Amino acid sequence: MRIVLCGTGNLATRLGIALFAADAEIVQIFGRTEKNAAELAHILHCAFTISPEELVTDADLYILAVSDDSIEKTVANLAIRDRLVVHTAGSVPMEILAVSAKNFGVFYPLQTFSKNKEVDFRNIPICIEANNASNLEILNGVASTISEQVVRVDSNQRKQLHLAAVFVCNFVNHFYSIGEQLLNEQQLNFDLLKPLIRETADKVMNYSPASVQTGPAIRGDNAVMQMHRNMLEGNPAWQEIYSLISKEIRVGTHRDAVG
Amino acid sequence: MRIVLCGTGNLATRLGIALFAADAEIVQIFGRTEKNAAELAHILHCAFTISPEELVTDADLYILAVSDDSIEKTVANLAIRDRLVVHTAGSVPMEILAVSAKNFGVFYPLQTFSKNKEVDFRNIPICIEANNASNLEILNGVASTISEQVVRVDSNQRKQLHLAAVFVCNFVNHFYSIGEQLLNEQQLNFDLLKPLIRETADKVMNYSPASVQTGPAIRGDNAVMQMHRNMLEGNPAWQEIYSLISKEIRVGTHRDAVG
Repeated sequence: MRIVLCGTGNLATRLGIALFAADAEIVQIFGRTEKNAAELAHILHCAFTISPEELVTDADLYILAVSDDSIEKTVANLAIRDRLVVHTAGSVPMEILAVSAKNFGVFYPLQTFSKNKEVDFRNIPICIEANNASNLEILNGVASTISEQVVRVDSNQRKQLHLAAVFVCNFVNHFYSIGEQLLNEQQLNFDLLKPLIRETADKVMNYSPASVQTGPAIRGDNAVMQMHRNMLEGNPAWQEIYSLISKEIRVGTHRDAVG
Repeated sequence: MRIVLCGTGNLATRLGIALFAADAEIVQIFGRTEKNAAELAHILHCAFTISPEELVTDADLYILAVSDDSIEKTVANLAIRDRLVVHTAGSVPMEILAVSAKNFGVFYPLQTFSKNKEVDFRNIPICIEANNASNLEILNGVASTISEQVVRVDSNQRKQLHLAAVFVCNFVNHFYSIGEQLLNEQQLNFDLLKPLIRETADKVMNYSPASVQTGPAIRGDNAVMQMHRNMLEGNPAWQEIYSLISKEIRVGTHRDAVG
């Protein structure tokens, strides 16, 4: 299985390293800037190029780990012809590849990636989709070498997964950030919140989140909520977020109680 | 150090177990309902009562692990006189105890507690405050037997900590719950999100949350954000939450870029 990896960002880097560690034969990195492509090629002990004409044309799999906007253009510019090509995006339909490719699919690792932080791919769900059964089988084979959780997910499901990921990762991280800022205002160290952050995440590994909801909103503790809103007087956006989510927590409970 | 524990809820249970494991002498549980008080007393191998007249009057420390609303009433009803009494609430000023007690303070473990889930108190920050230095020293001694992170925090700081905790715990858990509901809509298992939830929490153990923000909002990916808002058409509250937080993530970045 000879692989060409297109892209040099966080996901390309992390995915490349995982494939390399699983003895995949990465033959070439295709990137937009020479420096980044050379850097990743160095890590993965393979060739690199930044010109479409120099693309290896006989690889078995082309992985597009590029930004959503660039997928369509990249696949059109590269001479991929009948080779298998996949993108790695949560919110882009598989069919976008159908214009320029005959054999195509999606290889979407559901995780947040940083260039410099190691991740253990074995626990990362890899969501695969392909234009036919044999291509799906190929993707399943590649994904299984790096992850223990390979799942078949169609484009609609993947889109929904990505939306859910925005809530449980991107929005959650923003709340961590609000927490840090609130502590800084009172000369308190963010470290104080870390055991709570960890426990909150740990808890839902074994319980449904709705069943372990705690805090003033679920208790209907209006005195505390009013005090909190007053404390957020100086930041109307945070105040609005506070009110909106507290209300939702209550409504959700009422919905459960009724349903 | 003879301790009376007032309350039988999640915090009273978990704190009682931690103190017991650290060889504290818990002499009595005071509760509102006989069943709950008897249950906890059984776990902690101590006496219990539900009538204020039967309260042990010569203990060294009375810990009120009761709801915010009940603190004032509880301390007034119990013959605590000159003994040291503390409450365990995030958002209640210490001075509420001054009306009925001479020696008082706060013993606030910054964590979310479930009755049935074990927690390791050693990593839980315990925020202490007292009406004088010698009482503070006593609380420091007790807290240090169960936690490695005892911090002196005044009532204003504690209030702010509690507000931050609502964001990073209660609101975060609600977003986990939204994630679960979104997955259920597409017949996907919540397990798929767990590695992402874990990694998102892990990341801020070593990085400032603002520095590791990812997702469509920080990238300014309007196409994906518009698609997500459309997908949330059926749930106006979630749609509003999505817009509001995405905007805040962008504004926060702009603020940083400018500042």
